[in-house]
Amino acid sequence: MSEQTTGRAAVMSDYKEDFEIREYPRPVAAPGGLVVEIDVATVCGSDVHAWQGNLALPVDPPLILGHEMAGRIVEIGDGAELDSVGQRLELGDRVVWAHVPCGRCHECTVLHQPVLCARRYIAYLTSCAEAPHFTGTFADYAIVRPEAGRVRVPDGVESSWASAGSCALRTVVKALSLAGKIDHDDTVVVQGAGPLGLFATALLSIHEPRKLVVVGGPEDRLELAREWGATDTVLVDPSADPAGRIAEVTSITGRGASVMFELAGAPGVMTEGIQMMARGGRYVMLGTLGGRPQEISVSTIVTRGITVIGSMSGEIGDYHTAMQFLDRYQDRFDWNRMLGNEYGLDELADAMAAMRRMDEIKPVIRPSRQT
Amino acid sequence: MSEQTTGRAAVMSDYKEDFEIREYPRPVAAPGGLVVEIDVATVCGSDVHAWQGNLALPVDPPLILGHEMAGRIVEIGDGAELDSVGQRLELGDRVVWAHVPCGRCHECTVLHQPVLCARRYIAYLTSCAEAPHFTGTFADYAIVRPEAGRVRVPDGVESSWASAGSCALRTVVKALSLAGKIDHDDTVVVQGAGPLGLFATALLSIHEPRKLVVVGGPEDRLELAREWGATDTVLVDPSADPAGRIAEVTSITGRGASVMFELAGAPGVMTEGIQMMARGGRYVMLGTLGGRPQEISVSTIVTRGITVIGSMSGEIGDYHTAMQFLDRYQDRFDWNRMLGNEYGLDELADAMAAMRRMDEIKPVIRPSRQT
Amino acid sequence: MSEQTTGRAAVMSDYKEDFEIREYPRPVAAPGGLVVEIDVATVCGSDVHAWQGNLALPVDPPLILGHEMAGRIVEIGDGAELDSVGQRLELGDRVVWAHVPCGRCHECTVLHQPVLCARRYIAYLTSCAEAPHFTGTFADYAIVRPEAGRVRVPDGVESSWASAGSCALRTVVKALSLAGKIDHDDTVVVQGAGPLGLFATALLSIHEPRKLVVVGGPEDRLELAREWGATDTVLVDPSADPAGRIAEVTSITGRGASVMFELAGAPGVMTEGIQMMARGGRYVMLGTLGGRPQEISVSTIVTRGITVIGSMSGEIGDYHTAMQFLDRYQDRFDWNRMLGNEYGLDELADAMAAMRRMDEIKPVIRPSRQT
Amino acid sequence: MSEQTTGRAAVMSDYKEDFEIREYPRPVAAPGGLVVEIDVATVCGSDVHAWQGNLALPVDPPLILGHEMAGRIVEIGDGAELDSVGQRLELGDRVVWAHVPCGRCHECTVLHQPVLCARRYIAYLTSCAEAPHFTGTFADYAIVRPEAGRVRVPDGVESSWASAGSCALRTVVKALSLAGKIDHDDTVVVQGAGPLGLFATALLSIHEPRKLVVVGGPEDRLELAREWGATDTVLVDPSADPAGRIAEVTSITGRGASVMFELAGAPGVMTEGIQMMARGGRYVMLGTLGGRPQEISVSTIVTRGITVIGSMSGEIGDYHTAMQFLDRYQDRFDWNRMLGNEYGLDELADAMAAMRRMDEIKPVIRPSRQT
Repeated sequence: MSEQTTGRAAVMSDYKEDFEIREYPRPVAAPGGLVVEIDVATVCGSDVHAWQGNLALPVDPPLILGHEMAGRIVEIGDGAELDSVGQRLELGDRVVWAHVPCGRCHECTVLHQPVLCARRYIAYLTSCAEAPHFTGTFADYAIVRPEAGRVRVPDGVESSWASAGSCALRTVVKALSLAGKIDHDDTVVVQGAGPLGLFATALLSIHEPRKLVVVGGPEDRLELAREWGATDTVLVDPSADPAGRIAEVTSITGRGASVMFELAGAPGVMTEGIQMMARGGRYVMLGTLGGRPQEISVSTIVTRGITVIGSMSGEIGDYHTAMQFLDRYQDRFDWNRMLGNEYGLDELADAMAAMRRMDEIKPVIRPSRQT
Repeated sequence: MSEQTTGRAAVMSDYKEDFEIREYPRPVAAPGGLVVEIDVATVCGSDVHAWQGNLALPVDPPLILGHEMAGRIVEIGDGAELDSVGQRLELGDRVVWAHVPCGRCHECTVLHQPVLCARRYIAYLTSCAEAPHFTGTFADYAIVRPEAGRVRVPDGVESSWASAGSCALRTVVKALSLAGKIDHDDTVVVQGAGPLGLFATALLSIHEPRKLVVVGGPEDRLELAREWGATDTVLVDPSADPAGRIAEVTSITGRGASVMFELAGAPGVMTEGIQMMARGGRYVMLGTLGGRPQEISVSTIVTRGITVIGSMSGEIGDYHTAMQFLDRYQDRFDWNRMLGNEYGLDELADAMAAMRRMDEIKPVIRPSRQT
Repeated sequence: MSEQTTGRAAVMSDYKEDFEIREYPRPVAAPGGLVVEIDVATVCGSDVHAWQGNLALPVDPPLILGHEMAGRIVEIGDGAELDSVGQRLELGDRVVWAHVPCGRCHECTVLHQPVLCARRYIAYLTSCAEAPHFTGTFADYAIVRPEAGRVRVPDGVESSWASAGSCALRTVVKALSLAGKIDHDDTVVVQGAGPLGLFATALLSIHEPRKLVVVGGPEDRLELAREWGATDTVLVDPSADPAGRIAEVTSITGRGASVMFELAGAPGVMTEGIQMMARGGRYVMLGTLGGRPQEISVSTIVTRGITVIGSMSGEIGDYHTAMQFLDRYQDRFDWNRMLGNEYGLDELADAMAAMRRMDEIKPVIRPSRQT
Repeated sequence: MSEQTTGRAAVMSDYKEDFEIREYPRPVAAPGGLVVEIDVATVCGSDVHAWQGNLALPVDPPLILGHEMAGRIVEIGDGAELDSVGQRLELGDRVVWAHVPCGRCHECTVLHQPVLCARRYIAYLTSCAEAPHFTGTFADYAIVRPEAGRVRVPDGVESSWASAGSCALRTVVKALSLAGKIDHDDTVVVQGAGPLGLFATALLSIHEPRKLVVVGGPEDRLELAREWGATDTVLVDPSADPAGRIAEVTSITGRGASVMFELAGAPGVMTEGIQMMARGGRYVMLGTLGGRPQEISVSTIVTRGITVIGSMSGEIGDYHTAMQFLDRYQDRFDWNRMLGNEYGLDELADAMAAMRRMDEIKPVIRPSRQT
């Protein structure tokens, strides 16, 4: 347990520039809140997009990026003795935690969909200029705000898995909960073979759909998808005509996708996906957070009776489900296969660059690492 | 009751050409089937599209167009004494009836969605060259096939209303059943002020949503929409920037559309509609059966958590609901306001042309009319 | 606005005994919380049951009963400037507020059903022996705890309506949200003609079901039910054989109840209700919070394909919906018809006794009333 | 392929009496219908109940019992070349088929729930006195009526499995489709370890719920349940207090059953089951088709927010799903483990008696068997 009075953070002062290591005073816990030492923070595509200045959400530098993490509790505020599902928290326990919905809007209280809250506090997109400074998770410390959901990491779950689970997996958990029932007769298609796509493959494989097709690349990720339960994979060659992929998916599935998940975020992904759908199918969109409009065959939606479901982020219950899943299935799925190399705080730009080049599925930042 | 041995039909031999009146032998009823005299057949936009050669569905001339109708029973086949909801049928009763799903495919029997059946028999798009010839309903007679759902027209419902109800209204009834609950807190937007849009306005007004906004034109149809329960209307000037309409709908509704219905089928209607949606909203698409792909902001679907639901046609239960609705609410809504002038069989081209020009919302073909 | 340093409360020291008026120090607002002066507190059946010692929930005297109320804000804690749907709160505004779910259990965070939280804080069932004493709402003051949802009362809504709405109506709003769609073809049955049944009748009448049958009594309440939209009423004579009522409901509805609401809480209400159900019907249970087991024909549930849905209380979004409904429809429904006489704090026992005798539908306690 | 002109049937002339072997003329196929030779007919509890005269449904002796079967096609009527999911049928192929809904009632056409049709034709409960006599399936031949759904048995599926699948399994498939999503976090309880309970265990195990508890007996069936995926089993000793079982299930599951299936049909099964439910749980009832009313704690339904769902029989799509399931998972589940000894037609009473004594889970009648 740290006895430090300050901690370091990798600060992004401007887009695309290298990060600067700054020292800030160690934060203190508010009533109902926690202070944690970051054990591991993994890099999400959104971090890279924010760094590159092309995230659709508003961003306010200087920033400490990072929002996937597992933190070890170093201070427990008054009344914060339980996590959000009723498990007791002790100093030294590890937790993951959520963005903070406002709790005071139609989406939060009438729709019961805090993930749609327009005033959700997203720490890593908020300026770190003001105290307590520790916003994002590429830092030694982080604050779990009183209103933030938090879940204890099971002992058997490695911090790097929990970190990846705290964003990619909980997002997929939420999307599956909106997708409705998936059964042994379904023909499921996953667009994308990045962290979202691979986690989705693992989660979906549990239900043993008749076909579980992953459309993505590169080939080594498709191989992992097959190990994790894909019955078929279709390699995406960006220079190839999508018609070939559509024909291939139609041939594999017979009727098209009875359920499809968009987890690629690539240009034209929905243009292509709609054509892969079976009549009466459900298409859950979650990978596309920005980019240009896509040309969609609207009459296909109508004549095939397709339902398209937009899904965003996840709620604290989804974090819990994600942690349970990582723990229970660690022998079936080697979660480390998805994770990349470890980097120290001062190597953050290298980690992000490796992810941009698709050399790494998900780099791991370990602030305590000596470099 | 007719004792004729032949009957006339308005036959389309080629696209865009005038119709030719041909005589065919009066058909006979198969076991489980009916023969009817057409009392009224109303013109649907799809008839006009088929005539113009730009319907997305396959078409096989020579055709007898027409698929909205009320027919008076002149022969009852063995075992056809009850309609599809258990009401007794007598000679002289009027009925409406449905397309015939194959009953032998995944959509029909596993999904229980016969409207999505790819092998659905659609009489008016099938060649009339072979006996028994009477396919579409712009004719003196029609056949209700044994496998076709059919519903008795309540005595209080005029044939022209029933006819319009047998297509436009039952399609909207089905779409509303897919839309989920609509409540007094909802802000509902209807795109389109044609027959689909006007029927939807009437049906939706029953639930008294906080806002019921009809976006369409021309102005006289919007006036009718307001009489039928629209709280607000937004005139579509095709030359104006959609941004103005989006701003207007957003201003009227506050949060955007919590539920929206696409009933316009116009180019760009979904491009525009997505921008009018509230977070967590549901968008039912049914008006667009063809046309070019539309540019859709996919990230808006995701970040607003929108659900898009494609809906096609309607099932025989929806016809029943439609007939009950026409009957029950005839004092609240003057259904004749939606209907146009009456035409004889030999005036069919005039009727269709008037509809194309938007001079008529829905022309009425009455085969018995002397012209 | 009060400048008092103390306030009175009607304290129940023991079951069935008269209430004792005690003075306690005026409470102060915690951060995120409010202090209100009770403008009106209405009496709920649960208050009477608690007083009589036959409430199923655990109870811990001495108690200040009362949980339906409208309070006028006299102090706003830090950060409590908005209500739960984002409306600004000022001193002197009136609010209603909710029980406090724990936010730290499976029901709260995984199921998103805080109404099912087993550790929900229910003020009026918690001892008032300890400071800040002001628990229930039969008192001069009340506290809105930081974690409690709260909604501003619209200016056009009288405090007595808001008070009744804060329990009975919000409970019915929640139950309707679980009931699924109610349409003009439905045959809806409401069991009970007390406050829950009457509010349900008003809410349901908006959707104009084909039949809206209220089964209850006495006759003057059924008359009010008919004024508020019941198409039919069936008087319950407790000494009569339920078979007669079942036959009557079956006859009125034709197929039985397509949707039914249990709002009576009487012995045998479900035994009887199941027999009134249509095949494929939905039966929402919310009126029965205790009492002996009831003899249910389980095979009827199976062979008729009935869905039974238990519903409890309501969430803060339901309070908001309730307030909007009271405001919007005050010209259609005379809410005062449901309310009884006004009583001061020291007349609470009289008010409760009148309710027990069914002399009053819902008595109104106005602490400021001089008696 | 038989060239016989007559066939035998085991006829029940009176309740509880031995069956009489009668010869009837071999039937012929109507247009749209099939004639089959019965390869195997398995015994269902309902056959035994009908024989004993205590089935809740109306029964009209003389009867040929039997409604679980696999038949080999010996004649194909005009237009019956495809099964209900579009697969081609040839002479010699095996099929299973469904009861015949009327297709002319509210349940069939408006609710789309033919299983709830009150006029459903159930062959084995209809008198066999009139030609074509072959009603039930304990006979050499059977008729697949034109309106009856029918599905080809996959080549890899043994007739005895298909036969058991044509009733018990398709009923469970339907029930699961109504149960909503079942996920790796669920705690599922199955009441009953007969054919319904065992098939349910197999189907549910695919989704790997956290707990899958089978409550039933005797012990050898529980052992099979564990082999087929039950994580825990609770033996029902009819003389023991249900409180012990309730405590055991609660202890195993932690929160109670998040999803429960009633497949036992025993007295008091719902009385007991409700107490095993988790808050917010779903309880699908399908095993209880008669018997005395049961004492149910209605307030538990309300305060735990339980949903109870009645489910009956299954539709032809469910038969298809059942056949696919038997085929796909034959290596994981040894379906023969559930099946009993083989009997000839003239040994039917012995088979039924063995089932009554619970000596056999499901006896197999093979009409061709020489005895």
